[in-house]
Amino acid sequence: MALDPARTVAELWELQALTGDENGAQRVAWTETWEQAREFLRKAVADTGAVEEIDEAGNQWFTLRGGSERELLLGGHMDSVPNGGWLDGCLNVMAGVEVLRRIAAEGTPPLTVRLVSWADEEGARFGRSLFGSSAAAGSMRDQDELRARRDNDGIALPDALREHGVELDRALDARSQLANAAAYLELHIEQGPVLESMDLPLGVVLGTFGVERHQIRWRGQAAHAGSTPMDKRRDALAGAAKLALEIRPIAAEVGGGAVCTSGNVVCKPGIVTSVVETAEQLLDQRHLDADSLARLLASAKEASERFAAEEDVEVEWERIWNIEPILFDEALVELADESIREVCGTSHRLPSGPLHDAAEVARAGIPTVMLFVQSLRGLSHTKLEDTKPEHIELSVRALDLLATKTLERLSA
Amino acid sequence: MALDPARTVAELWELQALTGDENGAQRVAWTETWEQAREFLRKAVADTGAVEEIDEAGNQWFTLRGGSERELLLGGHMDSVPNGGWLDGCLNVMAGVEVLRRIAAEGTPPLTVRLVSWADEEGARFGRSLFGSSAAAGSMRDQDELRARRDNDGIALPDALREHGVELDRALDARSQLANAAAYLELHIEQGPVLESMDLPLGVVLGTFGVERHQIRWRGQAAHAGSTPMDKRRDALAGAAKLALEIRPIAAEVGGGAVCTSGNVVCKPGIVTSVVETAEQLLDQRHLDADSLARLLASAKEASERFAAEEDVEVEWERIWNIEPILFDEALVELADESIREVCGTSHRLPSGPLHDAAEVARAGIPTVMLFVQSLRGLSHTKLEDTKPEHIELSVRALDLLATKTLERLSA
Repeated sequence: MALDPARTVAELWELQALTGDENGAQRVAWTETWEQAREFLRKAVADTGAVEEIDEAGNQWFTLRGGSERELLLGGHMDSVPNGGWLDGCLNVMAGVEVLRRIAAEGTPPLTVRLVSWADEEGARFGRSLFGSSAAAGSMRDQDELRARRDNDGIALPDALREHGVELDRALDARSQLANAAAYLELHIEQGPVLESMDLPLGVVLGTFGVERHQIRWRGQAAHAGSTPMDKRRDALAGAAKLALEIRPIAAEVGGGAVCTSGNVVCKPGIVTSVVETAEQLLDQRHLDADSLARLLASAKEASERFAAEEDVEVEWERIWNIEPILFDEALVELADESIREVCGTSHRLPSGPLHDAAEVARAGIPTVMLFVQSLRGLSHTKLEDTKPEHIELSVRALDLLATKTLERLSA
Repeated sequence: MALDPARTVAELWELQALTGDENGAQRVAWTETWEQAREFLRKAVADTGAVEEIDEAGNQWFTLRGGSERELLLGGHMDSVPNGGWLDGCLNVMAGVEVLRRIAAEGTPPLTVRLVSWADEEGARFGRSLFGSSAAAGSMRDQDELRARRDNDGIALPDALREHGVELDRALDARSQLANAAAYLELHIEQGPVLESMDLPLGVVLGTFGVERHQIRWRGQAAHAGSTPMDKRRDALAGAAKLALEIRPIAAEVGGGAVCTSGNVVCKPGIVTSVVETAEQLLDQRHLDADSLARLLASAKEASERFAAEEDVEVEWERIWNIEPILFDEALVELADESIREVCGTSHRLPSGPLHDAAEVARAGIPTVMLFVQSLRGLSHTKLEDTKPEHIELSVRALDLLATKTLERLSA
């Protein structure tokens, strides 16, 4: 049985017809629709002879025993956001199914090959993403907090998980699943505009960005818009406006794909007749290199102090969240690059802005790499998310070739 | 009976004790507390022999018949915002009482002298300021809209006014009150920081600013903060930020006391992980000169088009409200300047940012001028509003001298 990438496209359409509606994909983790998607996966894998197991964190594994206990892992996630896209997460899994079929058809592989569908990558129902992969990676450290989380209907996370056979207190036991892992491969839609703008179907991912998120509070003085001369103002918005613009030259100077975003400014009193007294600004900065990320942050803080002095206002920074960059395995990046070039002529290396399950696996010390396939208009988390069928087929071929190359290298 | 400015300060304290509380002044128009303030005024004027009349718009008039039917008007307003200051509005009225006492004590004046307490200058209860003065000036053109207005308790404006003897449909009949007016004088606290910063107690007001108020909608493209390279962004906030800063050099270039304020920016989706798709910005521009105001607006629009092109976003302007500059009478400005110089040595000419009843009277074609007395820290519409008692006394003296000079000129 040869690899049949067109079958992957057909199966993804079928999955969407089964679990989506007119508003998009509805495969939200810990719901009946998600269970339907998992059942769909179970049936698709059945003819490969791979053995199914659901671990303590709800991750769904299919194991094709090979000549060695060492394992090649292929992974993705069947869950989606509500009103999501038809490819986000499940493309990876269904492409993995096709690769598993091809490998199974060729007889016993040199290494054990496993396909995993991670539980609750999106965190759509309880606001905690990467649930299953962080449990398996051993990086889940917020179980006390998770115990208190509730969905919009007031249902507690532990109760919802129990309905799907998962005991939160035992989730970290899923760590044993990675004990023999030698490599992890993940294919995902890009969810960004880079490959489309370069007119390339596929790219290899260097790693996931480190992120620094801050709330910045500017405090000036409310004053009447009519009776306060321009030179007597202490305008909090002026500080926020200067910083919203300054993060761009800062990103350009640091370079290396740095991105900085001011996603919101909230002004108070926020009325047409008053100078702004306080402006609360959100800032998100990302880089694949830890030192560069630190420079982005330091430069923005320095600029904000300068602007505060210029505007005679106060400025305060509060960290909301941060994560270090997670780099993928250099040797696997090379193999992925080769695979893409062989399948479609040209490859491109790019960082991933969003986090992925692959980042959790890489954090656990397992050699990891990801492939990105072009997203039309860079859209995701919407029913408008789309990728050309011919690009999906190329992505299945590239993943398959990468699996072959990885098995060769690991068994050499 | 000589002028006694200290009595004005004492009466203002008494009024505040009677009608204010620990949160500030509570003389909101069309309330029992406002009626108490009007009764307080009635008693204060009683010994002058001036005859009281409440007109069709609720304005309270006290007329001291003179040697001619031509009238010198002194005016202010007893109403305040909720939790307001002890001087805003009533300083003008109580200073007028003292001037009326002095004139009455000297016998029949050459012209008829009238003191008016305008009804509902603040518009605090129904959101419609300058109610009584716009009715008397004949510029009230929103009676249909006023009929539908309700206060926070759902009480309709016409019903509330009827409880205080005012029929909305007849309010414009108050126009007859200005038939014989030859001049109108008004003293007010500055409500801004200019006189305090110049260390001057008093200033003469050149007129009220013309105002242009707009909402500016910037529309870019929401995009993932992590996966969208800096050069592929269409950031609506960047347009708003550039304009918030550019209005300052524009104001400086137009000069002549121009003020421009961006009082609010509302970003959507307004989250830390997305480039801003839409930013709704408020802009308030003011100038005493109509051509300069037009230049402020044209320059800001031109700049916004430039920024929209630079940022590859769209920009749309919608006018919220505008009013032309209203200039006070040149001859009266001269007399006011003389009066201030004679009372305290130095005068200063300045525009008024906020509107005042005087602007309505001036719009009706009656020669008008205002005096400003220094506000501490420029604060108003708060219980923190304050003016030094010695400055209040100087303001009463200056208003009195201005009344004398105006009567002399009008009867010459």
